[in-house]
Amino acid sequence: MKWFTEDAIMNTYHMTHAIKDVKNTLVSLGNEEIKTDERTVIETGSSNTMLYMPCVDLKEGYSLIKIISIFPENPQAELPTSQAVSIISELKTGRHLAALSSSYLTRLRTGAITGIATDYLAREDAEVLGVIGTGAMAFEQLLGVLEVRNIKKILLYNRTAQKATQFAARLRERGVKADIEVLEDVDSVTKQSDIINCATKSETAVFNHQAVRDGTHINGLGSYLPSMREITIDTIATADLIVLDDIEGARHEAGEFIEAESRAVFDWKTAIALYELIAGSIKRERAESITIFKSVGASYYDLAVGIGAFKQMS
Amino acid sequence: MKWFTEDAIMNTYHMTHAIKDVKNTLVSLGNEEIKTDERTVIETGSSNTMLYMPCVDLKEGYSLIKIISIFPENPQAELPTSQAVSIISELKTGRHLAALSSSYLTRLRTGAITGIATDYLAREDAEVLGVIGTGAMAFEQLLGVLEVRNIKKILLYNRTAQKATQFAARLRERGVKADIEVLEDVDSVTKQSDIINCATKSETAVFNHQAVRDGTHINGLGSYLPSMREITIDTIATADLIVLDDIEGARHEAGEFIEAESRAVFDWKTAIALYELIAGSIKRERAESITIFKSVGASYYDLAVGIGAFKQMS
Repeated sequence: MKWFTEDAIMNTYHMTHAIKDVKNTLVSLGNEEIKTDERTVIETGSSNTMLYMPCVDLKEGYSLIKIISIFPENPQAELPTSQAVSIISELKTGRHLAALSSSYLTRLRTGAITGIATDYLAREDAEVLGVIGTGAMAFEQLLGVLEVRNIKKILLYNRTAQKATQFAARLRERGVKADIEVLEDVDSVTKQSDIINCATKSETAVFNHQAVRDGTHINGLGSYLPSMREITIDTIATADLIVLDDIEGARHEAGEFIEAESRAVFDWKTAIALYELIAGSIKRERAESITIFKSVGASYYDLAVGIGAFKQMS
Repeated sequence: MKWFTEDAIMNTYHMTHAIKDVKNTLVSLGNEEIKTDERTVIETGSSNTMLYMPCVDLKEGYSLIKIISIFPENPQAELPTSQAVSIISELKTGRHLAALSSSYLTRLRTGAITGIATDYLAREDAEVLGVIGTGAMAFEQLLGVLEVRNIKKILLYNRTAQKATQFAARLRERGVKADIEVLEDVDSVTKQSDIINCATKSETAVFNHQAVRDGTHINGLGSYLPSMREITIDTIATADLIVLDDIEGARHEAGEFIEAESRAVFDWKTAIALYELIAGSIKRERAESITIFKSVGASYYDLAVGIGAFKQMS
């Protein structure tokens, strides 16, 4: 069995690759060539959990399980909240081929999913990207958007402004050419943005609906527990098109959508799954439509990038 | 993350260690310090399956998941039917510490379980061991018995006698001192044995009940599907003490016990779990009692040897 470190993967496998591989996996998902089972969650005390997410790709001929520890108190000991590893096996022989450190891959796949959804949903001429929350997942989420739209201005907002400034420096280091501004007022971010990325752990909505312009596309990936909120309920009620990366997952996890449904301003039946969106017949119909993409993650996204990275490095 | 090969583990971690570690884990199981969840099974076509068996040891502070491919047609391509790998994570930090190739460990833990059960159930003076079926699991199953009883004679029976002869050579190579005989009549094995080991893939009982002597202890680990049979229903009906390595698992998998229950000669409620046996109050009461131990496997046994081997090699 081969072992691939974070560094080896980061040096080889990038957003462009991830977007291509996730798209291919979504096509396979639509063709029923992907088999998953419910993820297993074992609580290990002090609100720590171990998650096990297995998935099989009958077309590519591999299985992948991602093992992820989610330890909310870890930052106090200067350790990351979540740490992941994936194991790839070969369906032809049953051999276990590789273990991949998967923290970067997890962030990358989330960015790739966001990029794909943004490509289908945001206006073609979108050029101002607002970022609300500059924490762990925000960087790759932003790179996903940059991959699919010609972004000229990036507006950053974070509760602790200093972290937004560090984030801006990191973007410049990475060679991002767009203008970057850190704003201390979330409304001025919202009002100027064509695309808004949210990646927070908030329990209340992180922007005001009144400030959202017509034609805005919103990406949310922060509220991954029923108790969390990120997008306002009014925006959900107003949106012309709502796309979810995994409808079953969102029903259990996406806090603001669970609330919107209980308030009868949203219906899971009208939500579109990302694999349906890329199948092609559904699209943004009016320039002034508000569109939303919400990501909670699913095992087949981890499979897509894990196998993609493995094939590229082998 | 560290990677441990089959060879590294085989050179370091042996039956004595495995028996000690499995016993400790069984004590923890009794103390509710072990958390498991149902294993996940994904079928990948042509009767191939991927199995995922996660388990958490709160006392030792580790989690382990065993990933095992079971590909029944593999021997036709000169590949093993089952191939396993385990991933160990640390509950204090959430870090993923090691990947262990686990085919040997799977056989070893099965042998250790058999050894422990035999130690508690077989007569102290047992000295003739009959082995019915000399396939993949039989070698370590036998080593488990040798660890706990002073065996003077080993009688081997296999449908293809030539394989039994090869098995005898392998035992001698390993330095086993007991007399070893290959017999072509299963009844003469049964009639002479104090302990009988069965490890077959049979769909009908592999010995005749009439040939079983009073005082015999029987170990079964072959019939792991409801369609399989190894121990005769009459022997189950006659046994004074029946111990199962995992009662829930046996209810779903142990073919002859499922049949015995449906024929009302056996009741799951009277079966003893191995962790209860080693807690101490239950034991063989009469020299002439027939006792049975049936193993189907469970994730905490894999955890016991995986963590044991990891600690020893670290």
